[in-house]
Amino acid sequence: MDNNLRALFNPENIAVVGASSNPSKAGFTILNNLLSIGYPKKVFPINITEEKILGLTCYEKLSEVEDKVELVVLITPSEMIYGIMEDLDKRMAEKNDVKVIVCAAANYGETKTEEGIRRQNCLMDTAKKYGIRVVGPNCIGVIDNINRVDTTFVETLLPKETRGKRGGISFISQSGSIAASILMTGASQPAPISMNKFISIGNMVDVDFIDLLEYLEEDEDTKVIGMYMEGYSDGKKLINTMARISKKKPIVVLKVGRSDVGAKAANSHTGSLAGSDAVYSAAFKQYGIIRTYSFEELIDTLQAFDAFPLPEDNNVFILSQAGGFGIYCTDALLDEEVLNMPVVEEETKAELRSILPDMASVCIPEGYADITASANVRQHVESLRIVLKDKNVGSVIFITVIPSFLPSKELAAELVKLLKEGEKVSKPVLICIMSGNYVRESRVILEKNGIRTFDTPSNAVKAVRHMVEYASFLKDAEGRK
Amino acid sequence: MDNNLRALFNPENIAVVGASSNPSKAGFTILNNLLSIGYPKKVFPINITEEKILGLTCYEKLSEVEDKVELVVLITPSEMIYGIMEDLDKRMAEKNDVKVIVCAAANYGETKTEEGIRRQNCLMDTAKKYGIRVVGPNCIGVIDNINRVDTTFVETLLPKETRGKRGGISFISQSGSIAASILMTGASQPAPISMNKFISIGNMVDVDFIDLLEYLEEDEDTKVIGMYMEGYSDGKKLINTMARISKKKPIVVLKVGRSDVGAKAANSHTGSLAGSDAVYSAAFKQYGIIRTYSFEELIDTLQAFDAFPLPEDNNVFILSQAGGFGIYCTDALLDEEVLNMPVVEEETKAELRSILPDMASVCIPEGYADITASANVRQHVESLRIVLKDKNVGSVIFITVIPSFLPSKELAAELVKLLKEGEKVSKPVLICIMSGNYVRESRVILEKNGIRTFDTPSNAVKAVRHMVEYASFLKDAEGRK
Repeated sequence: MDNNLRALFNPENIAVVGASSNPSKAGFTILNNLLSIGYPKKVFPINITEEKILGLTCYEKLSEVEDKVELVVLITPSEMIYGIMEDLDKRMAEKNDVKVIVCAAANYGETKTEEGIRRQNCLMDTAKKYGIRVVGPNCIGVIDNINRVDTTFVETLLPKETRGKRGGISFISQSGSIAASILMTGASQPAPISMNKFISIGNMVDVDFIDLLEYLEEDEDTKVIGMYMEGYSDGKKLINTMARISKKKPIVVLKVGRSDVGAKAANSHTGSLAGSDAVYSAAFKQYGIIRTYSFEELIDTLQAFDAFPLPEDNNVFILSQAGGFGIYCTDALLDEEVLNMPVVEEETKAELRSILPDMASVCIPEGYADITASANVRQHVESLRIVLKDKNVGSVIFITVIPSFLPSKELAAELVKLLKEGEKVSKPVLICIMSGNYVRESRVILEKNGIRTFDTPSNAVKAVRHMVEYASFLKDAEGRK
Repeated sequence: MDNNLRALFNPENIAVVGASSNPSKAGFTILNNLLSIGYPKKVFPINITEEKILGLTCYEKLSEVEDKVELVVLITPSEMIYGIMEDLDKRMAEKNDVKVIVCAAANYGETKTEEGIRRQNCLMDTAKKYGIRVVGPNCIGVIDNINRVDTTFVETLLPKETRGKRGGISFISQSGSIAASILMTGASQPAPISMNKFISIGNMVDVDFIDLLEYLEEDEDTKVIGMYMEGYSDGKKLINTMARISKKKPIVVLKVGRSDVGAKAANSHTGSLAGSDAVYSAAFKQYGIIRTYSFEELIDTLQAFDAFPLPEDNNVFILSQAGGFGIYCTDALLDEEVLNMPVVEEETKAELRSILPDMASVCIPEGYADITASANVRQHVESLRIVLKDKNVGSVIFITVIPSFLPSKELAAELVKLLKEGEKVSKPVLICIMSGNYVRESRVILEKNGIRTFDTPSNAVKAVRHMVEYASFLKDAEGRK
């Protein structure tokens, strides 16, 4: 493992060049985020005019910091890069300690102007001289929740409760806005997402997709890798790397620049060549790399891979308390050619009938049960238990629209008992408790216990489809060995 | 206009047969909802054992109510229907006042059992004898926000602030669960949706899609009609009705039972025949009826039609502060063949360049501007103003991912000034302020001022596509005259 990259996620002390006492500045937010996440080592704000910011003693120059500094965050106006690199040169000649720079500032190579490129070259010349790795420029920063590092200048978004909490999702983003939105949307889930590692890579002038994918490949805490990508200079090499890793852990990608016009916009944005979308698409399919087409699908799918075991097969049972959404889900499920609604055993049907109201529709059609709006908590939970033990069921989509007489929090608690406290459930159960704020608390109960929930049945269908396809890819890859 | 149907939405007094003092019962929630919405006339709970419920005097029998009763809500166990109809018969012989029954109770014809059908026949025989119209059975009720009627037994979902507030959306649902979810999801929007009329039609044993569509056709307060449908006995007649109305106001449909298996589930649910999906699809297309495929798309599209003027053409400009989401939106927009990214006038480009940072990407590609993450409030609002006045721009999708230094509430307030307080803006502006809880307050500011916002750019694309298609249908229909 690259020791310098290690210092990106677990550095011995951090200096923030361009730290600010103005709360509306990025140089303030970075310090604030580092303190808020509880970074356990030392943080040194570099600021010429201030004495202290957020209780931390400021230094005029990086070279004046006595202690070891492994990670330097740059958030100064880009025209200051020359002076800063001169000072870094001085420090490295004396101490040779800096291993990685996160250049969060913009106005470098991505502007395609002469000055921008000259600044970027200045940054890179010094970095290369000492073997310092560079993330960015033009990125929003890096988070490692386990090592309690947060160098982002996004408003303190990781809710306290998720800080330092081990999550299985790591994310690499070529766009700062997508990266920020992933954090903001993740923080707004019923139980906020605890990312494992999170990297906004900006211009990718040095540390790039391949470096980070290889790092995450070896990172035992990363269960699933998410990627937002616009393009990459060596598409073939990238695909080969992704193909190798994809056999070990799922990679979920949102790749834009699908259209020619979108590709043009991507080139104008990060200067990257989107590459032939058809080529990427075919390669993703061949190598079991999961491609999503919408932002919601990306987030739902990442959460599903993190939360659930892989399904054994493509048989998905729809268990619904709501007729309308049951049919809606059936349509959505059958839109996905890879999925199937299974014929369950006669015993399962008989058991379901024995506990459900007469009006319930049991396995009409096959693979489907409507337990009716009159179903109580016990009927919800028992019918799920019965369906789960059928050998022909690989996954379950469980839908309920809470009527006023159904205690939704009690239902959530009973589902937690069934799925997390009893015999180990080795099948994905994708739960939709609907709708809106009214059912938020019950979703929180489930999610805090590691059971991810979905806004709508069609979102659940998309997530289970990706899991089924990936599981099938792994089986085939195993068979080819 | 059918005077009996009028009494469904604006009745002279309401009796609730099966009213209950138990807050977990539907018979309680209905009373509570009627009181909460501020129904201005009299409500009579019919309950044999209680004296008062929620301060309202109970009556043992419907026939004992002295005052006029135009609307009767039934929420008793279905086996009691015989006694209730006998009593209704008595009342009608004496007073002949009841015009409409909302039978919210289930366990009637939809069960396809002998008893269920017999009960339904009993209900209908009495109703027909007196020309009383029946909504249901097996429905969740009816809401008219303007006349302050709410006979639903869904937990009081309409936020106080929306009650009695004039909204342009009316919705007809063949499924109780979809109906309830529409209310719950609507109530959870940044500014809760104020429905105009809302009807859960259940088994459609009498009042059906056609009756209600014709009512809403004439209802001046209904700007857009939403429908959830599983099937209808006379598909041709339904399509003809929808085709006529569609020339006057948009009809947005979520039709399920698309697949054979889904159709089977629909038949098992409401006993309806889904009909050939291809036939419906072709007819919808021909007659400008807007078909949506997901629940979110349905809600977004209804809100868009309610909030925005129809676009003049298919030219959609993407104005984004966020490169990643700008490209993402470009891809999504070009997935819709009907939409186009316009070439704007040189003057527009020059004006944009004059106010934006050097790094901004103006019209590369055409119809697209990335104002960059450094854009301040003024640059956001001014660039929108400039784009809006270009004659080649029909609609704008406006995207911003709020960084910590951008005051999002100020931005929202300035957007309100531009779009609602200045010169009348006659083009749709679909705003995505991202993401999650962090931007909720700014979205509330916009939505409370009638500017609907969207969760993601792809959701906005779907909504604008439907508006463009409908506008084009109207133009063609006009041309054929």
